Amino acid sequence: MRVRHKPWAKDKLLNHPEFVVTDPKSHIGEWQSIFKSACPIHVEIGTGKGQFITNMAKQNPDINFVGIEIHESVIVSALDKCINSQLKNVRLINGDANELTDFFSENEVAAIYLNFSDPWPKNRHEKRRLTYRSFLAQYEYVLNSKGRICLKTDNQGLFEYSLESFSKYGLYLQNVSLNLHQSHYKEENVMTEYEEKFSSQGHRIYRCEACFSE
Amino acid sequence: MRVRHKPWAKDKLLNHPEFVVTDPKSHIGEWQSIFKSACPIHVEIGTGKGQFITNMAKQNPDINFVGIEIHESVIVSALDKCINSQLKNVRLINGDANELTDFFSENEVAAIYLNFSDPWPKNRHEKRRLTYRSFLAQYEYVLNSKGRICLKTDNQGLFEYSLESFSKYGLYLQNVSLNLHQSHYKEENVMTEYEEKFSSQGHRIYRCEACFSE
Repeated sequence: MRVRHKPWAKDKLLNHPEFVVTDPKSHIGEWQSIFKSACPIHVEIGTGKGQFITNMAKQNPDINFVGIEIHESVIVSALDKCINSQLKNVRLINGDANELTDFFSENEVAAIYLNFSDPWPKNRHEKRRLTYRSFLAQYEYVLNSKGRICLKTDNQGLFEYSLESFSKYGLYLQNVSLNLHQSHYKEENVMTEYEEKFSSQGHRIYRCEACFSE
Repeated sequence: MRVRHKPWAKDKLLNHPEFVVTDPKSHIGEWQSIFKSACPIHVEIGTGKGQFITNMAKQNPDINFVGIEIHESVIVSALDKCINSQLKNVRLINGDANELTDFFSENEVAAIYLNFSDPWPKNRHEKRRLTYRSFLAQYEYVLNSKGRICLKTDNQGLFEYSLESFSKYGLYLQNVSLNLHQSHYKEENVMTEYEEKFSSQGHRIYRCEACFSE
């Protein structure tokens, strides 16, 4: 995604501590306490403009959502959606997914969403893909025993790579869909901004879940 | 595939013992001895009319191929291709894949090909799919430690199911292609009769390999 610089973004994020957690590392192991109610925690890595996480939060009041996004000029749009809807069950982190195990402790998370992540198509950038084994190791650590990774992308190469990477790590694949919008899964599917645009142009959307135990 | 009854098929198969192995169970553990030279054995389950296995055999003289096909009226077409090309490295079995471990002993096989297998789309027929766990157990037994299963299909549902079934069995996925004929794998791809017809109509072909060790 091309990121337009917004010089006012940093201040706006700081001015909304009810949604933006500016010191996520200090909440490690204690995320339940910053939400109103103790519910499973679902984390989206690469929250972007926040359509997915805010709509998921509206539809699932019994789940607490944390969105991580590295670009402050993008996450402000997610913040706007949180403000407009006054969601109680969403928090945002303007941070780097590489620090996931500094944000969350062992077993603290029930699900991780990877939506339309950067495919990093060049071989030399493999380690940057969010389904590279070093990331899977972090997910394994923060996810509880029944936790799952939910991957959704329109990028065929990233999906092929991820299937291989998941299986090599010993993960179990579930609910694989090679054409999400033509499948029975679409009924419960919550779309991202990007997904709406690209699926309307006829692009296939791929989705699967990967679990550490059956 | 609709099978046209050919009353003369059985006799023709019996008349060509140089290609058709009529007593496969008696060769268990000794397949190398019925070929001219000791080479890795690759088995295709559901050989159909034999275009794949005979072209593979021509291109790979250092591999011995065994094709299994349950319909005698279909496998006679494969036999015709063997006769016409006088292939030394192909044998045919008119038999049932369910008896695989009666045909081959432990570690006797280096690769198994599943090409455009019957998808058995109804849930109650899951056990008949060639990637159901009872079949995977047979493949695990007959394949050597570096052996692999090569799956190719145009059926999206069968491919989705197989990815899940492979991963649940602990298999490693390799060389996944969600659009084989638009990928770099197509250079070395040998097509089946069915594949030629359906890919020319614009259908996607899915392919992957699954291994029991990395």
